[in-house]
Parts: sequence; structure tokens; C-alpha cells
Amino acid sequence: MPNVWDCASARVVEEAGFPVIATASASMSWALGYPDHQGAPRDEMLYLTRRIVASVQIPVTVDIEAGYGDTVAEVVETGRGVLAAGAVGVNLEDSDENGALMDMRLQVEKIAALRALGDSEGVPLVINARTDAFHPGTLASDQQFAEAVRRLNAYQDAGADCLFAPFVMDMPTISALVQAVNGPLNILLLPGMPSVSELKTLGVGRVSTGPGLYLAAMTTARRMGEHLREDGIYRMAGPGSMTYPEMNGLMMR
Amino acid sequence: MPNVWDCASARVVEEAGFPVIATASASMSWALGYPDHQGAPRDEMLYLTRRIVASVQIPVTVDIEAGYGDTVAEVVETGRGVLAAGAVGVNLEDSDENGALMDMRLQVEKIAALRALGDSEGVPLVINARTDAFHPGTLASDQQFAEAVRRLNAYQDAGADCLFAPFVMDMPTISALVQAVNGPLNILLLPGMPSVSELKTLGVGRVSTGPGLYLAAMTTARRMGEHLREDGIYRMAGPGSMTYPEMNGLMMR
Repeated sequence: MPNVWDCASARVVEEAGFPVIATASASMSWALGYPDHQGAPRDEMLYLTRRIVASVQIPVTVDIEAGYGDTVAEVVETGRGVLAAGAVGVNLEDSDENGALMDMRLQVEKIAALRALGDSEGVPLVINARTDAFHPGTLASDQQFAEAVRRLNAYQDAGADCLFAPFVMDMPTISALVQAVNGPLNILLLPGMPSVSELKTLGVGRVSTGPGLYLAAMTTARRMGEHLREDGIYRMAGPGSMTYPEMNGLMMR
Repeated sequence: MPNVWDCASARVVEEAGFPVIATASASMSWALGYPDHQGAPRDEMLYLTRRIVASVQIPVTVDIEAGYGDTVAEVVETGRGVLAAGAVGVNLEDSDENGALMDMRLQVEKIAALRALGDSEGVPLVINARTDAFHPGTLASDQQFAEAVRRLNAYQDAGADCLFAPFVMDMPTISALVQAVNGPLNILLLPGMPSVSELKTLGVGRVSTGPGLYLAAMTTARRMGEHLREDGIYRMAGPGSMTYPEMNGLMMR
């Protein structure tokens, strides 16, 4: 899942043949002018979600960060907004704005409440439950694995479909995690990591790129801006560059 | 002016040292899931404008297409929304959704009304008046130059600060236009054209890239998505790739 942030990036990913669209909270926040970690107001994130859903014909799952609220009721309200926007999946993380891991029992309640919401609305909501136990600096390194497994399995018990452990990069740990968790494991693909097919061989169920695609796109935008400042020559992005008619055509469907 | 479409692209252009931010309607429409040429509702375009203005410390000018409305009153309402969003410039084109040139007298009235709006609000609104006389297929090629000059000078009389003739690519025509129009000429930079400094030597006052930056960014996003489909390897966008902390830092100011 190359995570997207706006409607054109969603259409590009759909056209590349991916079966589902996943948003990245960091990218969406930056696009809307906020820092990551619930910097963007819920309504603005939901507005952009609605537009993305309207732009593609495949299912959309939304990165709702920690749920845009501290209480179970607030997280359910966010889930309701996601369903109203036409999306059918959520990604819920268990760290707060400062990076601290939140109470596991409360997180379990939030996941169970989202599952109950999907059931009551008749939507097979796909819940991707994320733990930030491996986030650099959050826990001592000898505590990360056990805490991640404890949390992910509790989240699975509460109704999560998929268990997300970002910031794990090495094959042995990923392989051990696949064995230790009771559901499909989601891994964040970062530069220098094994390929998607290698991760699949290990038994990883889902791979996402977080803000990777947006950072790459912005790198190109920055480079083009810098070229314009330096020598003023308009450089295309190389072979296969998208044209105006091509992009406009993608958005006319 | 490397035209932008969202808040992060605006911050990137600001950091690259440009003194002003200009939006591109095509890019903004695509980001919000609409085709170009007033496909995006005015309120959504203004919402994103507000966010862009809040994200940067330099002035912002907005591509309002043909003004989001057929009447003078509607164009003024759009101008009012632009000022309320905190932007201080507009780009107004003279072709309709089907590419036909609109009545020149009506366009003159719209420009004069925008100038009056700026005056009454005490804002030195920068009006970039665009003619689509050179748009391929709009006029017979032997009529383009005269019609462009007639329109641009009428727009200047009506209060436009800058005169925009996109789709002119060759040096002789650009040079003749500079001589024939009574104000600073704005040229659209397209692949294969002379550099910004060559255009400056000719006397061009302003150069913009339209959707070029966004198309380049999306080309990179597409390429990365395709790589993930093909061999599943995460490739950075080359040397100088933006990182999460760098981008998040840009958005935290």
C-alpha cells in the first residue's frame, strides 16, 4: 500500500493496479498545513477523505492517528465520520502526540468500540491496530518486542483485523513477530528494508509506506523549484512524465 | 513562480527562496478530486487557499480560473473570498469551461470590479489578467497575436497589474508581445522553452509553471508506486530526498 494524501495521488495508485487506497496521516496533515500527530482537525481530515473516496472506485482505509480524541466516545465519533465519508477501514495507533504509549486497556476499548460501530452499521470495517512499541526512543530496546506482542494480541482479541508494527526493520525480528502475533502483520516499508516479496515470504500480511510517496513527490517538487531558482530551466521529471491531459483525464472519470 | 497546490508544496517553494506563492488551479483541482476549469467548487478552493496562506509568511496569489461564476457579481464574490482567505493576488482567465474566449467587455468589467474591490478593502490586490488567445485550437493562428494584444491592453486599462499570455513558446513572439502590451508580461514556462533568464532578457516580467511542479511530483509518486508493484523495493527519490523530520519541521512553524 503506497499511502496517499490527496485525490490525484489516490487515482495514480489506483491506476497502478493496487486494490485498495490507504491514506497516511503525516502526508494528509502536511498537505493541509499541519504537523503530523493529530495536528490536522478531524473535520478537515474527513473532508479530504470524502474527496478521496469520491475520486476512486476501490475501497479506502483511513489513517485516523490515535482517533482524534482521548475518549472512546471521541474515537467512535471519528469512526462514524470515516464511515460517513464512505471509507471502510481505519488505522488506529496507540501513542499520543508526545510519542508516549497510551494505556493498553483504553486502546482495547477503543478498538472494541470501533468493531461494534462497524457491526451496528453493517460495514465490515477493516481495523488496522498499530502499536508504537518499536518507535525509536519510546521503550528500552529489550522491552520492545514483548510489549509489541502483548499489545498487538490484545488488539486482535478486541477485534482488530490487522496488526501494525512500524519501525521494525530487520528480517529476524519481523519473522519472530509474524510467529508471535495472532493475526496478519502490517510492516512499514522504509528505505534499505527487504523487498515486499521478501516480507511476504516471511509471512507479513500487509506492507505500507507511510509518508514515503509524498516525501518522494515533494523531493521532486523541491528539486524542480531549486532548478528554477538556479538556472531557470524547466526540467521534466524524466521519461514517463505525466502530462496535463493525462492527469486531467484521470480526474474526469 | 513554481505554482503550488497544497500547504507542503507552498512551504517547499517558500524555503527555496521564492518571494511569493502562486497557486495553479489545475493542480489544486486535481488535489481536491476535480478536473481543471472550475471543476472544484469555490468554497473548497477557498478552504485550501486559507490553509496555504496560514502555512507561509510570504504573499499568496490565487488562480481563480474564470472567477467561479459568469457574472461580475459572482467574480467579485470570489475576490472577496480570496481576500478573506488572506491572499493578495488573483489570476483571472478569459476562457470558459469549453475553452471559448469570453466577451472582452464583460472580462474588462470583471477586472475593473476586482480592482474596485481591492481599493475599497484597502488591499493593493495584484491582478494577473490572462488571455487564452494563444490556446491551441481557440483562434486561427494568424489572429492570435492581435487578439491577445487587444485583450491584454484592455485588461491593463481596466486595472490589471500583470498581463498573462500562456501557450506562447517562441522567442520572437514573446519579444513582440513584450513590446506590444502596456504592462508586465507573464509567460507560462513549458518544457523546451527558453530559460527564465532568457525570458527576462526579452523583458518578460513574470514566469509561472502552471501545473508543472505538481505533474513532476505525481510522476515521481507514480514511478514509486509502480516500483512497489513490480519489485517491491522502496526507492528514495535520489540524493537530497526529504525526510519525515525535515518535512514535519517545515509544517511546525
